[in-house]
Amino acid sequence: MAVLLYDLATADDRRLSPFCWRTRMALAHKQIAHETVAVSFTGIRGIGDGSYRRVPVVCDEGYWIDESSAIADRLEATRSNAPSLFGGSAGRALSVFVDAWATRLMMPIGRIVVPDIHKLVAAEDHPYFEQSRRTWLGTNYDAMRAQRGEDLERIRRALAPVRSIVAAQPFIGGETPLYADYQVFGLFQWARTTCDVALIERDDPMHPWLERCLDLYDGLGRSCPAYDW
Amino acid sequence: MAVLLYDLATADDRRLSPFCWRTRMALAHKQIAHETVAVSFTGIRGIGDGSYRRVPVVCDEGYWIDESSAIADRLEATRSNAPSLFGGSAGRALSVFVDAWATRLMMPIGRIVVPDIHKLVAAEDHPYFEQSRRTWLGTNYDAMRAQRGEDLERIRRALAPVRSIVAAQPFIGGETPLYADYQVFGLFQWARTTCDVALIERDDPMHPWLERCLDLYDGLGRSCPAYDW
Repeated sequence: MAVLLYDLATADDRRLSPFCWRTRMALAHKQIAHETVAVSFTGIRGIGDGSYRRVPVVCDEGYWIDESSAIADRLEATRSNAPSLFGGSAGRALSVFVDAWATRLMMPIGRIVVPDIHKLVAAEDHPYFEQSRRTWLGTNYDAMRAQRGEDLERIRRALAPVRSIVAAQPFIGGETPLYADYQVFGLFQWARTTCDVALIERDDPMHPWLERCLDLYDGLGRSCPAYDW
Repeated sequence: MAVLLYDLATADDRRLSPFCWRTRMALAHKQIAHETVAVSFTGIRGIGDGSYRRVPVVCDEGYWIDESSAIADRLEATRSNAPSLFGGSAGRALSVFVDAWATRLMMPIGRIVVPDIHKLVAAEDHPYFEQSRRTWLGTNYDAMRAQRGEDLERIRRALAPVRSIVAAQPFIGGETPLYADYQVFGLFQWARTTCDVALIERDDPMHPWLERCLDLYDGLGRSCPAYDW
């Protein structure tokens, strides 16, 4: 197998990383045969030469690369005959825009999912996980749970741009998905695989879009345990 | 003159409408010879057959059309030989995304600029302007002024996606501007032409982008009175 994706996994093999999901969908989009290697949070330091602190990490025919945006750029450049991830330079600008926009959703979604993720990670990861997430989010699990309602409202309001697009067309990218779809889908996978709080309601115009994303590539997004929102 | 743009103007001919600026830049981008017709707030009802309640309104060789997104779509479809406003379907998705994203900035920017716009509009527009803006923003001028600092912080944070893109490339659209640039630029023109509160600081990575937008089409964006941020 020429391409390996090191993919964050819980003890029961939930693939929860929003950034790994971007890469996993991008690999499928580019029709690249690959295998995923499940790693725990504390297992990340064992990848490759030991220099990596985050996933996704991809070993692409001996070439090591991390950071989901850099990986997407490499896949686009090196697999130019496969379907484009960006649809040209304007579509790449869309991905940069969506990336920065999505960054602002990370903390409110994080506060919702992190207490539940704690229960799913391997026991040896607990001390690292709790400390790193408290540092990142600046608060403890009880406080995160206490503001769930407020965070959920904020997230649903902030999803307006995606809602506008997918109310009018099947995917953010148009008739077929682009990397921008996977960037947003990754956020949903992070929550779906770990938390029973639905980020969107059933009657949200984004719900059919989420289902379409889950159907892509023979239901790749449904290939690990997740909550049915 | 085959193409007319009905363009909102203050008593001293400041062209302040963020949506008219989108259209004006789009017409220049498409290299369409046109004239603008200055209209006051209460003058909008006198446009065409009297059915319009908002600008921009364009009369394109006898075809009347309003709503900036619809106008952009028409210009793209009818002037396919001129430079594209979207750069393909992914770029059009970018515009839909930016449109919905920008909508969430309208109220905080509105609260900053509306009290100053009041001083600039024609006297006969004052009652209409004050009432319609109070209804839209749900508050009075004193309260808007009182929360300026907070709104300004919110706006600067919310501009992060644009900041990320233009820190890495000249325009949101890439090496050259696309309609997405004009969508954001319109917000800045709304504020620049009416209010001395700079939406961004001089050392913001967006500042050189704003200057580039102002330079486009022989300095079209500088062609009416405005504040020098």
